[in-house]
Amino acid sequence: MATQKGAFMRGLDHMIIKEIEKPAAGPGNVVVALEYIGICGSDIHYYHAGKVGAYTVDLTQDYMLGHEAAGTVVEVGEGVTNLQVGDRVALEPGVTCGHCEFCKTGYYNLCPDVQFLATPPVPGCNEEFIEHPADWCFKLPDNVSTKEGALIEPLSVGFHAANQGGVGVGDTVVILGSGCIGLCTLLSAKAHGAGQIIVADIVEARLNKAKELGADVVINSGKENVLERVAELTGGRGADKVFETSGAAVCIQQTPYLARRGGVVVLVGISVQSDISYSFAQIMDKELTIKSVFRYRNIFPKAIAAVAKGAIDVKQIVTHEFDFDHIDDAYQECVNNRTDLVKAVIKVKG
Amino acid sequence: MATQKGAFMRGLDHMIIKEIEKPAAGPGNVVVALEYIGICGSDIHYYHAGKVGAYTVDLTQDYMLGHEAAGTVVEVGEGVTNLQVGDRVALEPGVTCGHCEFCKTGYYNLCPDVQFLATPPVPGCNEEFIEHPADWCFKLPDNVSTKEGALIEPLSVGFHAANQGGVGVGDTVVILGSGCIGLCTLLSAKAHGAGQIIVADIVEARLNKAKELGADVVINSGKENVLERVAELTGGRGADKVFETSGAAVCIQQTPYLARRGGVVVLVGISVQSDISYSFAQIMDKELTIKSVFRYRNIFPKAIAAVAKGAIDVKQIVTHEFDFDHIDDAYQECVNNRTDLVKAVIKVKG
Amino acid sequence: MATQKGAFMRGLDHMIIKEIEKPAAGPGNVVVALEYIGICGSDIHYYHAGKVGAYTVDLTQDYMLGHEAAGTVVEVGEGVTNLQVGDRVALEPGVTCGHCEFCKTGYYNLCPDVQFLATPPVPGCNEEFIEHPADWCFKLPDNVSTKEGALIEPLSVGFHAANQGGVGVGDTVVILGSGCIGLCTLLSAKAHGAGQIIVADIVEARLNKAKELGADVVINSGKENVLERVAELTGGRGADKVFETSGAAVCIQQTPYLARRGGVVVLVGISVQSDISYSFAQIMDKELTIKSVFRYRNIFPKAIAAVAKGAIDVKQIVTHEFDFDHIDDAYQECVNNRTDLVKAVIKVKG
Amino acid sequence: MATQKGAFMRGLDHMIIKEIEKPAAGPGNVVVALEYIGICGSDIHYYHAGKVGAYTVDLTQDYMLGHEAAGTVVEVGEGVTNLQVGDRVALEPGVTCGHCEFCKTGYYNLCPDVQFLATPPVPGCNEEFIEHPADWCFKLPDNVSTKEGALIEPLSVGFHAANQGGVGVGDTVVILGSGCIGLCTLLSAKAHGAGQIIVADIVEARLNKAKELGADVVINSGKENVLERVAELTGGRGADKVFETSGAAVCIQQTPYLARRGGVVVLVGISVQSDISYSFAQIMDKELTIKSVFRYRNIFPKAIAAVAKGAIDVKQIVTHEFDFDHIDDAYQECVNNRTDLVKAVIKVKG
Repeated sequence: MATQKGAFMRGLDHMIIKEIEKPAAGPGNVVVALEYIGICGSDIHYYHAGKVGAYTVDLTQDYMLGHEAAGTVVEVGEGVTNLQVGDRVALEPGVTCGHCEFCKTGYYNLCPDVQFLATPPVPGCNEEFIEHPADWCFKLPDNVSTKEGALIEPLSVGFHAANQGGVGVGDTVVILGSGCIGLCTLLSAKAHGAGQIIVADIVEARLNKAKELGADVVINSGKENVLERVAELTGGRGADKVFETSGAAVCIQQTPYLARRGGVVVLVGISVQSDISYSFAQIMDKELTIKSVFRYRNIFPKAIAAVAKGAIDVKQIVTHEFDFDHIDDAYQECVNNRTDLVKAVIKVKG
Repeated sequence: MATQKGAFMRGLDHMIIKEIEKPAAGPGNVVVALEYIGICGSDIHYYHAGKVGAYTVDLTQDYMLGHEAAGTVVEVGEGVTNLQVGDRVALEPGVTCGHCEFCKTGYYNLCPDVQFLATPPVPGCNEEFIEHPADWCFKLPDNVSTKEGALIEPLSVGFHAANQGGVGVGDTVVILGSGCIGLCTLLSAKAHGAGQIIVADIVEARLNKAKELGADVVINSGKENVLERVAELTGGRGADKVFETSGAAVCIQQTPYLARRGGVVVLVGISVQSDISYSFAQIMDKELTIKSVFRYRNIFPKAIAAVAKGAIDVKQIVTHEFDFDHIDDAYQECVNNRTDLVKAVIKVKG
Repeated sequence: MATQKGAFMRGLDHMIIKEIEKPAAGPGNVVVALEYIGICGSDIHYYHAGKVGAYTVDLTQDYMLGHEAAGTVVEVGEGVTNLQVGDRVALEPGVTCGHCEFCKTGYYNLCPDVQFLATPPVPGCNEEFIEHPADWCFKLPDNVSTKEGALIEPLSVGFHAANQGGVGVGDTVVILGSGCIGLCTLLSAKAHGAGQIIVADIVEARLNKAKELGADVVINSGKENVLERVAELTGGRGADKVFETSGAAVCIQQTPYLARRGGVVVLVGISVQSDISYSFAQIMDKELTIKSVFRYRNIFPKAIAAVAKGAIDVKQIVTHEFDFDHIDDAYQECVNNRTDLVKAVIKVKG
Repeated sequence: MATQKGAFMRGLDHMIIKEIEKPAAGPGNVVVALEYIGICGSDIHYYHAGKVGAYTVDLTQDYMLGHEAAGTVVEVGEGVTNLQVGDRVALEPGVTCGHCEFCKTGYYNLCPDVQFLATPPVPGCNEEFIEHPADWCFKLPDNVSTKEGALIEPLSVGFHAANQGGVGVGDTVVILGSGCIGLCTLLSAKAHGAGQIIVADIVEARLNKAKELGADVVINSGKENVLERVAELTGGRGADKVFETSGAAVCIQQTPYLARRGGVVVLVGISVQSDISYSFAQIMDKELTIKSVFRYRNIFPKAIAAVAKGAIDVKQIVTHEFDFDHIDDAYQECVNNRTDLVKAVIKVKG
């Protein structure tokens, strides 16, 4: 039996590497030798707390995390026509049913039968090789690295947010939260042609990163009044599009106040509180639209094209890189570093 | 000086009729001899409580209510080309600036400088004759009466709600609240081709009216669990479009639970509470869209065409009719009758 | 071996019935006992001329036509969860790959690998029983007959046309051509809430049918000048939406002249001429949008709901009905009757 | 009487400068001291041929051309609140009625009563000072020059084209024609996030300019087969969006062949031929959408924001600059230089 290394959480805050079977490519599938795997906030939540929302890790068994990955095709299954051995690809981690009303109408992210990597009980991809459906592997052009490829997944969340908000050229945009998803939203809003981009957060290092990635103004919401600053910066008009990426109740509550009449609020961050008090008076008075983001749909090819074109320099979000053998250290660092860590990636090979 | 009769509130819960100057048609304007004037919920709030939201009647002076009106053009001002004497018209009551970003982009309902009839301090149209800009008077075809014409205004709110929700042919629709605006939403949703229409309210007479106007199922939410009934009626899927027209906090809170994954909630009713606790977990999990309704825009010609075509039988919503001389009785009835009164109109002449 | 009857063209203008193998339900599929099968214009073209556009029947072999069908599920394959034996269903005849960019984005009608019944070399469904993927079989509510079910397919073309045109409540609509697809477009436009509907054709019987189905005005374009009549009927403004369903070059050429400034032309009928001279001056001057229709996508559930609701009375389009044993007569009648035949259906059983 | 210099065509191919009355600011208007005025293709057509489409210059009188302008506000009329003396502004040259269905719905470019500078008989702005409605003057931020301000008008055509085409991040775009409007379309498509941008023209100097402005690939259509090259560059798929900016019949005819299934063609260039033979077979088979461009609407604020942001470097399109006193030379150069002239501007002052 051909083997490979796989990393598994064994209880909370603990990850081990063991030898497991190396996959082969079934019909319609390919085997990808992974080169980079990103660590997502959800991975950290599972690792440290054992759950995200309603999804819970069965701690009586080893469980593999990871769902942001890219690598090189090493085996091609029967019937695969879009890929060949040697192609470098980014993996879209949600495999959908293809038959339900959501899949057929293009809203496949809402497919109730999706199998999504590292969403329990579906295992993730913290391993050397993965078998994956060929149509969920997207070929990278020569000028896009597999490190960038592994970042297409988190970028897609921000990209979908910008799409949901309908960001247009010249739009004034406010982004609450400057973590990985906030920054991906920033990069995407900029690629969509946004005009003035204002980012608020309470961590200075993150705001500096936002500035570096193209924010026109950053606001430290621990020190300044965000509502007043945005009113001032927009001449009292408010922003065309407001993105909430922090998941903090206080930020969610600010959103309708930040938007202009007829503006759009996009909810991206997930709150630990299910119910939050919200100003319906603001919504009605301004005739606001509230959109939300659940993962993404039909983004990978567009996001890869934008990275290839140079419109999005996604690798800038990476602040930390670890070898596969140090994956437990990497997760520990993600749990503990609340200052200058924005995004960590695991280098498997490449 | 030519005179006419005008009705004015003099303090709360009291309306008098007095002789006032009859208007003449200035440039771009027409004078309309009013034939029917509807009584809106907002009229009743001003009459009975002196205010609606942030708008307050100055009770030290007489104040004219009324903003739902239709009649016949009796004088045409200089430069008017779209109308002539004898034309029967419905009046759109909001006169906008025409110059701001909202007016230019077609979102004129959000014009900050709109002059809207019977929104203090702008006087209303509870009178025999009104001078009004010709381009805010919409000609009625021969088969649409001025009584129907006066109902185009409230119908437009429901029509705009259906537009905001993007009601499509075959959509499953839930409407919370079966008052005048709920029923106008029902009529509009039906005209937009909605499939199954479910209406919930706590007043039996209103539910009967909803049934009469085309609801497939009505739910008495005082007696039945709306969430359970809608789940059952939709096979657990939820509704494509959910309209909240009651303004009750408890109903607003139900909306995300009633919608299907990827569905749309449209907020139409205005709550007396500014802030309401809301399930953001439901929104995020289903990737819902929340839309809202502030009056309407660009609806009158379409709504009139739909009434002319027979697609909307708007006169069915009228349950009570009064002569102009009994306008105070009419308002009293609206204040007090909380059972079988859905919509009252004043017959001025015609 | 269980057998069934199947009808096959054997050369041009000739159809025979023979005993063939009765299908069984493979995984994900169902077997449907067909009750009604419609005859489409494309069926007639293959029968009489052996080809439609680039698709050609191999006349050296027997070939089964038919792609508009409904019946009752008699067998359910492994893994089917949405249907059970006894369910009455309408069949969507195009089975798509589910993996390409078009399938994933909801534009599955553009899937290059679609297998569409009765599009050579894929056989059709002129038979007693068919095996079909369960997710392309749509359950009919109790108040929708299988005869209506068989008409959902042609209705879907007209419904998609109305969608492509964005027909809204109150829109003025012109439909060129009053054959089956023109009438289905008419029924759909009406269900979408269209205001004035004007239909033009050269066959009086078809115009009468259009009138019966809800056209406000019909124009015999052999006797009257369509451009002048439409200008007159719309007060010189032109129609909001213009549908070309005849495929005649002369009608296609008229479309930009019939639309209002900013209006939409929807091309539905396929011309035998590939290239046609067209007025780009009209398009540019009015800033028109030209949309087109290739089959349909995501229509069946909505169309069935509209029929169930009573918004579309699709069975009215049927003018002729034949037993399965007389299927050759049925096809002959379709070839020859150019006056009062609008739509013929085959009754298999039921 | 205060005077100013104004330039007028006196017969064809001849422009004179004379002293005329300097305007004052009426109510709602401002007087702008112009600093830069662009020369548009339509200006050249009027100058050299006396007409554009149906619009004809009355050659028996002097006529002022010019409609692309920016400058500094020197006088503010009664009731103007959005501007003050000293503000630097770009002028939108079409003053609309504000009352028709097109104005109210946001489609003001289709207003039948628009007064558009330099569209006969409305005079243009080839002069030192102009009186213009304040709401059609858009304030320039500090980092946008009046030279850039004068280019907002032609940029808006390309920007509207990108909007009409719905250019999204990562879209593959083909632009036929690399003149001023083709290049403005290129700049706009890039600002909208387009992925691969392919530009075709027959003039090498223009293609070099396109390359300089961000085209990924340029095709000399005099030497290469555009259809074959685009097929090759897109892997046989075709482009998401195809823009025709040349107005050449042969290019218009190529558009449907260049688009992918489900793609969009945007017609921008106006042909001298009214009717052109077009492949409806291609349209139908690919279910294409054809959009068109008539001037632009609601673009100025967004385009100015994009220039301020640095997303569009519009001044790069200028190849030639002349003083106001040499305006006739400037027009002559535009008529005669068919090689390296892309865009000429007149410097009035500044």
